[in-house]
Amino acid sequence: MTELNVAGLQRRLVEFATARDWGQYHTPKNLVAALSVEAAELQEIFQWLTPEQSARVMEDPESAHRVADEVADVLAYLLQFCDAVGVDVLEALAAKIERNEVRFPPSSAAEDPGTP
Amino acid sequence: MTELNVAGLQRRLVEFATARDWGQYHTPKNLVAALSVEAAELQEIFQWLTPEQSARVMEDPESAHRVADEVADVLAYLLQFCDAVGVDVLEALAAKIERNEVRFPPSSAAEDPGTP
Amino acid sequence: MTELNVAGLQRRLVEFATARDWGQYHTPKNLVAALSVEAAELQEIFQWLTPEQSARVMEDPESAHRVADEVADVLAYLLQFCDAVGVDVLEALAAKIERNEVRFPPSSAAEDPGTP
Amino acid sequence: MTELNVAGLQRRLVEFATARDWGQYHTPKNLVAALSVEAAELQEIFQWLTPEQSARVMEDPESAHRVADEVADVLAYLLQFCDAVGVDVLEALAAKIERNEVRFPPSSAAEDPGTP
Repeated sequence: MTELNVAGLQRRLVEFATARDWGQYHTPKNLVAALSVEAAELQEIFQWLTPEQSARVMEDPESAHRVADEVADVLAYLLQFCDAVGVDVLEALAAKIERNEVRFPPSSAAEDPGTP
Repeated sequence: MTELNVAGLQRRLVEFATARDWGQYHTPKNLVAALSVEAAELQEIFQWLTPEQSARVMEDPESAHRVADEVADVLAYLLQFCDAVGVDVLEALAAKIERNEVRFPPSSAAEDPGTP
Repeated sequence: MTELNVAGLQRRLVEFATARDWGQYHTPKNLVAALSVEAAELQEIFQWLTPEQSARVMEDPESAHRVADEVADVLAYLLQFCDAVGVDVLEALAAKIERNEVRFPPSSAAEDPGTP
Repeated sequence: MTELNVAGLQRRLVEFATARDWGQYHTPKNLVAALSVEAAELQEIFQWLTPEQSARVMEDPESAHRVADEVADVLAYLLQFCDAVGVDVLEALAAKIERNEVRFPPSSAAEDPGTP
């Protein structure tokens, strides 16, 4: 039974790869390429949709399954990459949110919504 | 103070966007585009490195900071996307791992290390 | 003076890289990573735009310059990649168009506009 | 019969899309998403390969076919995007090469091989 938290899933993924001797493929460079490919596969589901259609994507069971599956792949490679380079992904995100609170005060006009 | 777990950070990100009126930009289609762009920015750090250099990327403080920053951006958009479409990202990954345990038995040769 | 055709520009790019001793970085694997990163940089310009805003992106001189610059980078890496693996990019595209003419007859409903 | 030059292939692609009523999907925003997805599909072929293996990718007929097919898709979306926004892709690349000749003199050390 997999624990439903980041540390538990990350450990599970690393053990999974080790048991299959996949560690040789899992350089940081390769893992980040795989992450990028999975993000693109998630994006492929949305590429021809209007914004309105994209908001209803989960109404179709087949699309909903694909979305969940690709989301899982993105997180899987992100966690394996973070394990390989020794980054604590939750701490990294918390630190980024703190910086963004300072950088984009809530009262300001939303000129650039690009971060985070 | 941000709680260091996925649910807490996700809630924080959604409140952050709401307070800045960024919700209008955060369609599933746009969030997945942003996720893909951030994954590419992470990959950019590694694009010219050899596998060996990529394994030592965290030894340089400036690269280490960039890596942590881009990892945070990828997770931020992944969590905002999952909030927008109503997917529980940890459950999705746990389910995927269960399926992969069946699909790739540990004893098998690693023909296709692509998943997960 | 650069000839305005694919073969002339491709030769120019390869000579440019050779003169700077960049050939060592230009493995097919690295060039395709760089191509993917440049495609994402092009996409970044559009990520928060509505479809209507995206259709008017060239009206802003700064955006227009960025678009042209990123388009150039995408083509540059595509041509360098094709040189590295020995693919004639124009022949590859002509062959693909021929196949798609058969695969998607003009009278059919546009179920899947994904190709090409 | 398709002319083997950029202008001829671009016209062919635009006529192809028009005949299938795909123009409605071909906003600049969607085309650049599709370009990014195709670049990732090309990258997927290389993601687990060593640099040495990536240099021999065309020795396997099936991989060689996939590479040519994905290269065609990347160019197809790039040309359709350029048609949609009114950018002359060959002129854009020629202009970029001219700028890079000034920016990276041949005698300089190759610190940053990232451009073009």
